[in-house]
Amino acid sequence: MSATPAVDPQADVGPGAVLLREIREQPAALRRLLEHTDEYAAVAETACARGLDLVRMVGHGSSDNAASYGVYAFGLLPAWTALRDSISLSVYYGASVDLAGSCVVALSQSGQTPDVLEYVQRARARGAFTVAITNEVESELALSAEAVLPLAAGPEHAIAATKTYTGQVAALALLAGHAAGRGAELRDGIARTADLLEELLPVLERRLSEIAVSLAFVGRMFVIGRGPEFATAREISLKLLETCRVAAEPLTATDLVHGPVAAIDGLFPVWTIASADAGLPAVRDAAERAREAGATLISSGTAAAEIAGAAHYLPVPPPPLSLLTPLLSAAPGQLLAWALAQAKGLDPDRPSGLSKVTLAR
Amino acid sequence: MSATPAVDPQADVGPGAVLLREIREQPAALRRLLEHTDEYAAVAETACARGLDLVRMVGHGSSDNAASYGVYAFGLLPAWTALRDSISLSVYYGASVDLAGSCVVALSQSGQTPDVLEYVQRARARGAFTVAITNEVESELALSAEAVLPLAAGPEHAIAATKTYTGQVAALALLAGHAAGRGAELRDGIARTADLLEELLPVLERRLSEIAVSLAFVGRMFVIGRGPEFATAREISLKLLETCRVAAEPLTATDLVHGPVAAIDGLFPVWTIASADAGLPAVRDAAERAREAGATLISSGTAAAEIAGAAHYLPVPPPPLSLLTPLLSAAPGQLLAWALAQAKGLDPDRPSGLSKVTLAR
Repeated sequence: MSATPAVDPQADVGPGAVLLREIREQPAALRRLLEHTDEYAAVAETACARGLDLVRMVGHGSSDNAASYGVYAFGLLPAWTALRDSISLSVYYGASVDLAGSCVVALSQSGQTPDVLEYVQRARARGAFTVAITNEVESELALSAEAVLPLAAGPEHAIAATKTYTGQVAALALLAGHAAGRGAELRDGIARTADLLEELLPVLERRLSEIAVSLAFVGRMFVIGRGPEFATAREISLKLLETCRVAAEPLTATDLVHGPVAAIDGLFPVWTIASADAGLPAVRDAAERAREAGATLISSGTAAAEIAGAAHYLPVPPPPLSLLTPLLSAAPGQLLAWALAQAKGLDPDRPSGLSKVTLAR
Repeated sequence: MSATPAVDPQADVGPGAVLLREIREQPAALRRLLEHTDEYAAVAETACARGLDLVRMVGHGSSDNAASYGVYAFGLLPAWTALRDSISLSVYYGASVDLAGSCVVALSQSGQTPDVLEYVQRARARGAFTVAITNEVESELALSAEAVLPLAAGPEHAIAATKTYTGQVAALALLAGHAAGRGAELRDGIARTADLLEELLPVLERRLSEIAVSLAFVGRMFVIGRGPEFATAREISLKLLETCRVAAEPLTATDLVHGPVAAIDGLFPVWTIASADAGLPAVRDAAERAREAGATLISSGTAAAEIAGAAHYLPVPPPPLSLLTPLLSAAPGQLLAWALAQAKGLDPDRPSGLSKVTLAR
């Protein structure tokens, strides 16, 4: 069942129905996550009590994209260093890094990802405080970690993750907020943002259905984000790769001008995620460079209107804290993936060569 | 002047002449770097004496790609945690992370990159041990850091970095080697690898000139590497983006099977970098998945022959230490960028919209 009334009742059956249902469920999933605020507070308290201020995040795919957000959530709230740690460095190459002062945050929807599990088992044996953030609190990953934090997103059936991605972003914000003594502020902020998302989704659903046809022949794209929104750029790119066969590459605004801008021509749409924050000038400059090179621009984010000359504007409303914007700004990309796949004659619920749980190492 | 005899004397003039000259200069540049071994030893000694074991690397473009290698060099030699730190987190978003226990390694060919400079100035004021690895030892970056380590690559004129990229990789290996008490072993290993590179380059130059024509219509590509070779995958992708307008995206073997494999079809070449190390099984599996999806495979690396069914094989010889393979494995990509640009009628010395020193922030 969808959490919001269906805009088009026909969309509940046929290609992409599963994906669309879970995109719509996101506000409800965020509210369920907030029912576990006390558990997040307790884990943050343990990390603080042990004097840990280095967070090692591990995950693949959408989970790794959420970890890109965690770099900013932990950096800006408790001023901790959080890194997307290399799983292969320890699991495959056998590096013997000292982990006694680290908090490991493992991100896995299913709790079954083999090398994430192995990383956590090794890290725990080496003295790290290990925390699993997962949708499956009885999974092997959950049982292997010292602490478990539920996503509580409900079963995810679509192969392309949506509600668990936004759940992971919210979970990292909530954990970082508690670590900074601002847990209640983050909880309330996420609750308000869930309300905003509920209002936004039907609007975007109509808008992206209209736009998708004009993008049906796109084969490649850059997606530009900065700071907390680099996670969104990665996640939008992954959705388009998975469901629409678009070679979408995420770049920071600075990355773009350090080389890839040379590849842009009129066949190369550039999606810019513009937030009303300290990263905006760089995103605006990068968009201008891309437009001069002939790119068709798509502009989303709370400051979408600040990007001059875009072909499509997909604004999202400002949440109570600017750091929570990624909870809203993934939605235009999720819904483009859903709509564009259908415009291209693909079924986003049956992407070629993928299964829900990836057991490859 | 080229460091090795020109295979084709005509290649020293005309489009791509500057790029080719610097590709050929790499063995000589590596030998010049090794003349500064004592300076690398002294910086490593200082870091060890201060008890630092967290390395924060900062840089953009090719410098950031070299930093991806540093994660493995520091992780596998002294067992230190090295991260590609977020410049924007502190410089633009104002995070106040405690840096007293950190060694900052700033990578910039020119020493002029504005936000790298600002990052270093802030980090030094906050108590980090700041080290600049640069080709310009009188630059503002060099003057701002507590210690300076020269790349000694000689002036780099091509817009697409080549000899300074391999120089940065060697510099990080040398620094990490000294930090692990294995400085002499790394110095000798790099010297031997420079000899191997000198023998390899003319062979690859001929081979890539032959292959390039068959790839002239490629618009997008995945480049797969793992472990230390993920840096190579990033660098090859950047060269192809900068000079050939190919939307090349670097992925780890695991990244590929977590989503992007769904985008592959017969128009989508996949370049796999296969090294004879612990990452090989995953690279082999990823290549097999890509081939099943219809991709044309290009296989390079010390274990290139282990990839079944590739259209093109570009093997490189094994260096004395497996960790030094990236000094050799970038060359096939550098030379494809040079040859493919010309096959497409582009001048790799004049990429659209780029200048040698990027002052954008």
